[in-house]
Amino acid sequence: MPQIAFLECSRCHHHLPADTPQTLCPLCAGSLYVRYDMDALRRSAQREDPAARAVASSTSLGMWRYASVLPDVTPVTLGEGWTPMLQSKRYPGLFIKEEGANPTGTFKARGLSLAVTMAKHYGLKHLAVPSAGNAAGALAAYAAAADIAAHIYMPQDVPFANYLEGVVYGADVHMVDGLISDCARLVGEQIKSQREANTPAEETWFDISTLKEPFRVEGKKTMGYELVEQLQWTYPDAVFYPTGGGVGLIGMWKAFEEMEAIGWIAPGSKRPKMYALQASGCAPVARAFDEGKPASEFFQNAATFAAGLRVPKPYGDSIILDIVRASGGKALAVDDETILASILDYAKNEGIFLSPEGAAATAAYDQLLATGELTPTDRVVLFNTGAGLKYTDMTAEAMHLRRPGSLPKSLPVGGIITPQ
Amino acid sequence: MPQIAFLECSRCHHHLPADTPQTLCPLCAGSLYVRYDMDALRRSAQREDPAARAVASSTSLGMWRYASVLPDVTPVTLGEGWTPMLQSKRYPGLFIKEEGANPTGTFKARGLSLAVTMAKHYGLKHLAVPSAGNAAGALAAYAAAADIAAHIYMPQDVPFANYLEGVVYGADVHMVDGLISDCARLVGEQIKSQREANTPAEETWFDISTLKEPFRVEGKKTMGYELVEQLQWTYPDAVFYPTGGGVGLIGMWKAFEEMEAIGWIAPGSKRPKMYALQASGCAPVARAFDEGKPASEFFQNAATFAAGLRVPKPYGDSIILDIVRASGGKALAVDDETILASILDYAKNEGIFLSPEGAAATAAYDQLLATGELTPTDRVVLFNTGAGLKYTDMTAEAMHLRRPGSLPKSLPVGGIITPQ
Ligand SMILES: [Zn+2]
Ligand SMILES: [Zn+2]
Repeated sequence: MPQIAFLECSRCHHHLPADTPQTLCPLCAGSLYVRYDMDALRRSAQREDPAARAVASSTSLGMWRYASVLPDVTPVTLGEGWTPMLQSKRYPGLFIKEEGANPTGTFKARGLSLAVTMAKHYGLKHLAVPSAGNAAGALAAYAAAADIAAHIYMPQDVPFANYLEGVVYGADVHMVDGLISDCARLVGEQIKSQREANTPAEETWFDISTLKEPFRVEGKKTMGYELVEQLQWTYPDAVFYPTGGGVGLIGMWKAFEEMEAIGWIAPGSKRPKMYALQASGCAPVARAFDEGKPASEFFQNAATFAAGLRVPKPYGDSIILDIVRASGGKALAVDDETILASILDYAKNEGIFLSPEGAAATAAYDQLLATGELTPTDRVVLFNTGAGLKYTDMTAEAMHLRRPGSLPKSLPVGGIITPQ
Repeated sequence: MPQIAFLECSRCHHHLPADTPQTLCPLCAGSLYVRYDMDALRRSAQREDPAARAVASSTSLGMWRYASVLPDVTPVTLGEGWTPMLQSKRYPGLFIKEEGANPTGTFKARGLSLAVTMAKHYGLKHLAVPSAGNAAGALAAYAAAADIAAHIYMPQDVPFANYLEGVVYGADVHMVDGLISDCARLVGEQIKSQREANTPAEETWFDISTLKEPFRVEGKKTMGYELVEQLQWTYPDAVFYPTGGGVGLIGMWKAFEEMEAIGWIAPGSKRPKMYALQASGCAPVARAFDEGKPASEFFQNAATFAAGLRVPKPYGDSIILDIVRASGGKALAVDDETILASILDYAKNEGIFLSPEGAAATAAYDQLLATGELTPTDRVVLFNTGAGLKYTDMTAEAMHLRRPGSLPKSLPVGGIITPQ
C-alpha cells in the first residue's frame, strides 16, 4: 500500500499534506483528491504481472484487493466491494454491476469504508453526515465497526430501512423535515456552534460529506478499477451511473486516469462515455447538461421515489458535468413511472431487483437502445447502486401494493426503543 | 465440470440416474445426493495446484468458482456465493460468513441457482416451492432469470420483502394463513390434482422443496467449500448454523466429505463441530437433540420473529441430528428477546446487521463463551444466513420501532398491481 504523496485541490491544484484531517481547499473551497507517487506505482506495478495480481486477490478482500492504489492504513472493513458483474440475459453487451451486494446494501459502503478507515487513523471520534439515506446507513455501520460516534441527518421520508439501520447500529439519528440540502445546513450549523463554543477537538464533529473530505471519493474509485478488471482490463464503450451526489462517477474517472498512468490499461484505449442518470423529479445535472451550463442550479421541489437521487444540487456538479462532456456521454432524466416500469421489467426478465436509482439507469439505457444511439452489443457497464430490497416500502408504495396478511399481532419480544 | 455419476439415496444408498428429473428415492422416500466419480476428481485435482485454482477463480464467479465439483451445465447465475468472511472485532477466533451479500439477500440463492440451473437443463417449465419466505424469493428471482414459471407458497406473515420480491419477479404468489408445513401440503395437493387430471407433463409443477430434489443441497454445499478455502484450506473448530430446514448444514457436511476424498483437505484433519441453532419458539431439532431422539417431532404453535426458523418439522431432521452428533456439536435454541439483544449488540459493536436467524447463532455463541464451552480464540465460522435489512419490518416490530415521518403522501407514480 502506497503512502499518500499529497492531497490536491480539484479546482486550483493547490497541494496539502495528508498527515492531518483535511476538508476543502483553503484557497478556493475545491474538493481534494488523494495523490500518490505515480512513478513509483508504475514501477512497482511493472514488477507484478497480472496473474500475480489475480492470485493475490483471490481471497475475500473485496475492494481492498486494490490496496496497491489505496492509502497505507489498516482497513475498517465489512466486506465491501468486488461485487458481481451480471451479463444481461437479453442484451449481450449490457453488464449490470450489482452494488446491492455491498454491506448496508449500497455502493456507499466503499466510500465510507475508506473514509472511516482514515478517520480512525487520524483519531477522530465524532463523524457527521447529511444524507439522502444510504450514506447515513453506511456511516452508521462503519462507525460502529470502528468504535466512532456517528451523527446522521436524513430526510424523514427516506426508506424505512435507512432509519432502522441508523437506530440498530447505534448512531445519533436525526430525521429532518426536508431534503439532504437541509440536512447539510443543519450539520454545518451544529459544527459551527461547536467551534464557537470552543468544544474540545475530540468532541467536535467532523463533516464526512462526500467531496468535503478526500476519502469517500477515493473509496468509490474502486468501482472503476473493478469494472475494468472484470472486463479483463479493458474499457467498456459506456458507463451508466445513477447520479445523486455523483461521486461514484467522479471516483471512476479518477481510477481510469490512475490505471492509465500505472499502465494497467493499454495505451491509447478510449475511455468509456459516461452517462449520468437522474429522475425527472430531481434532475439538476441533466438540466444543466441540456442547457450547456458549467454547473447546476438548485432543483426546486425535488420529488421522486428514487430516494438516493433526491440531491437538489450536488456538491460536485461541475466536476460531473466536465467528465460527462469530456467523455462524450450525456446526463439524462427519466420519470418515476418509467423507473417503476423498468424495475418490473428487469425483475421479470432478468431476475434482478433494481433499486429505483438503478432503474433510472436501465430506463435510460432502454431509451437509448430505442433511439438507436446504442445497440445491444455495445459494451455498457450499468450500475445498480443499491439493493432493490432496501426500498421495499418505497417501491411497494409506488406500486400501490399492500401486505396481504398482517404482521404477527403479538410478537414475543418487546422493549420500546426511542431514537433521538 | 464433472458429469454426475449417479444420484444416491441418503438412506438406503439406492442409485438412480440423473438424466431425468428425480425427486425422492422410489424405494424408501429418502433424499438424494449428487455423486461424481471421486477418483477422477481426485486425479484431476492433483494435476491442478492451489495457485492455479486461485487464478482460475479470481474473476467474479461467485460459487461457480467450484465448478470442478458441480454438475456440468450452463449456470443460471445472479452472482451468488463467494460471500465475505468477516473477522469479529471482539473475538479473534470468530468469523461471520455474511450470506446477506447473496442475490435476494440470503444463502437460499445458492441452492436455487443450482436447482433452477438443473431444472432449465431438464426442460422443466413450472417450479413450485413451499417456503418460510426466503426460498420463495430466491426461486422467484432465478426462475425469472431462467424464463421458468415459479409458484410460491409462503405464510402470509413473512417479512414484507419476501412478498414484494415474489410479486416483483413475476411469480405466482400464494400467501397462506399457516406455516411452511401448510404450504408444503398445499403444493403437494396441487401437484396431485394436476396428475389426477392428466395435466401434460410440461404444465405439471415440479416440487423444488429442499431435500425433495437433489440440487438445492448440492448448491448449498458451496458454503462448505468456501469457508474452508477462506480459512486457507483448513477446518475451523466449529461451525454455527441457524437451522430452519437445516439443508445448509447438510450441504456443508457433504462438502467436507468431498474435499477429503479429493484431497483438498489435509488427511487426518478434524472436521468442525457442527452447531444447529434454533429459536425457542420453534425448536424441533434442539428438542430432539436434548431428548436423544433420532428425529424431530412436529413443533406445535411455532412462533418467532426469526421467520426463517419457523419450520416445525424439517424434512432432513434425522440427517441433521446425525451430523450434529457425529461432529460433537450441539443443537441449541435461544429465545426471541435474546435474539433481538444479539442483533443490537452485533450491530453496535461489530457494524454487522444480522438477520434474526443469524442472531440466534451469535446469541448461542455468546452463551457458550459465557459457560466456557468455547473460548474467544476457538476458530468458529458462524453463518449470518440473511441480510438484516430483509427483515426491516419484523425487526422494527420486535423493537416496537415506528417510522418517525410518513412516506411521501402522494408519490408521483401509480397503477394498482393485484397479485394472485
Ligand atoms: Zn483550491
Ligand atoms: Zn432409498
